[in-house]
Amino acid sequence: MASKAVTVNEALDRALPPGHPERLLESMRYSLLAGGKRVRPMLALAACELVGGDEAAAEPVACAVEMVHAMSLVHDDLPCMDDDDLRRGRPTNHVAFGVSTALLAGDALLALAFEHLARGCADRGVPADRALRAVAELAGAVGAGGLAAGQVVDLASEGADVGLATLEYIHVHKTARLLEAAAVCGAIVAGGDDEEVEGIRRYARYVGLLFQVVDDVLDVTRTSEQLGKTAGKDLATDKATYPKLMGVDGARAYAAELVASAEAELDRFDAARTEPLRHLARFIAYRQH
Amino acid sequence: MASKAVTVNEALDRALPPGHPERLLESMRYSLLAGGKRVRPMLALAACELVGGDEAAAEPVACAVEMVHAMSLVHDDLPCMDDDDLRRGRPTNHVAFGVSTALLAGDALLALAFEHLARGCADRGVPADRALRAVAELAGAVGAGGLAAGQVVDLASEGADVGLATLEYIHVHKTARLLEAAAVCGAIVAGGDDEEVEGIRRYARYVGLLFQVVDDVLDVTRTSEQLGKTAGKDLATDKATYPKLMGVDGARAYAAELVASAEAELDRFDAARTEPLRHLARFIAYRQH
Repeated sequence: MASKAVTVNEALDRALPPGHPERLLESMRYSLLAGGKRVRPMLALAACELVGGDEAAAEPVACAVEMVHAMSLVHDDLPCMDDDDLRRGRPTNHVAFGVSTALLAGDALLALAFEHLARGCADRGVPADRALRAVAELAGAVGAGGLAAGQVVDLASEGADVGLATLEYIHVHKTARLLEAAAVCGAIVAGGDDEEVEGIRRYARYVGLLFQVVDDVLDVTRTSEQLGKTAGKDLATDKATYPKLMGVDGARAYAAELVASAEAELDRFDAARTEPLRHLARFIAYRQH
Repeated sequence: MASKAVTVNEALDRALPPGHPERLLESMRYSLLAGGKRVRPMLALAACELVGGDEAAAEPVACAVEMVHAMSLVHDDLPCMDDDDLRRGRPTNHVAFGVSTALLAGDALLALAFEHLARGCADRGVPADRALRAVAELAGAVGAGGLAAGQVVDLASEGADVGLATLEYIHVHKTARLLEAAAVCGAIVAGGDDEEVEGIRRYARYVGLLFQVVDDVLDVTRTSEQLGKTAGKDLATDKATYPKLMGVDGARAYAAELVASAEAELDRFDAARTEPLRHLARFIAYRQH
């Protein structure tokens, strides 16, 4: 997995070289190349290999989903949204570059995701109909059926008495949908059939929820220094979280259930190829930051 | 042209029905269905027909470029950007829905543009390789080589002593690139050959500059009521404009040159099919708001 992360980071660096206007490009690179776990690209590459595809075919998908993810972090951190100053141990984009540049860098990262996906697939000889399905799938994870919907409902829920159904809605849209798109697009460009694609979608949905449950648990159990971002923020803003609704132990038990459900979805595939995705689910479940 | 505008408005309404989350969808529809001249969709439809395509093939392109345009207006109007309260005679999106919803509505409109383009082309039997080229072309007009670049340089130029080269850079990126993408994508999905596509690109580039020159002239010669948006704003913020750099008469003469150059690019095409694009160039040149 460490070697895949290096591959992804190199591909991202090539996909977004420094350029003009300098300030905009610097701001985009600041957030895209800031490190992070690269979970979404990993998922895309692993899903591609799961259905027998070559890793190279999924590189444009891997980069594109990470561009979308970077955009969502830059916009979510803005003063009019979550108003966060710290991300991955560094000042957030708008603190470093100003609000207007950060907003535009986010827009430009989102556009670049689709440009890179379309051109990258064409350059690699991915059949155009598969690439086009991936464009639609990824776009669907961003807008009113994905990230933006999750964030709107999340903001509207702050301070409100939110139940488990709303919490799940928020996380499915803010987190799981993009992880799902990463995996599904990885499988689509590799030529996975409909049954394979839907199996991978369910796996990714479980992993997406798992990701958020673990995030919520870490927010209450770790310090800012350990996380590289402001800890205890959910409690301070009285946000609905899994630990708040289920207790920390309840949330941990739910996480264990989700790992098991995700792994069960992999049983239909060639066992030799499922190891990276099993590993990824466990990595997400047992990470410490 | 009036009947084409009705077609476009109906298609946009179908492409973005009310839904959940209500507030997000309302905010998106507020800006996308606010009327406006629909110049970009017209351009897409007319370019499609210019190369012998059927109008229906370019409908997804027409809607997608208007979604991108609506996004750019919503984000440009935000307090951290141009801080505008009035747009098309109504409160701007963030005044009506709040800053965070407006920002997310813009993100969601941008994503929807690519989803609608990809799915719409597939549904209409547009060959996938053409649709994929259109995705890349449209995306390229939005990010660091298009809208975002123009806006970053525009914001950095406020109050500065800006020359004609920078002014032209701003307008090529903020305005002309998207008009160009509209026309080029319309021709691509219709199966136009490379020479046709490049001719249309040059036509659209002239029209794009023309559009901005006329906008600048109107800003100093018309009232807010006549324009449906805040007039005299460029002067108030000491923004570089064509009238400021060339005088109002000089800017009007430049506009006349641009119309002639745009029309000259159409001479290579079947004369019977060029009328809508000639009409569009003149409409943009002689409009009063």
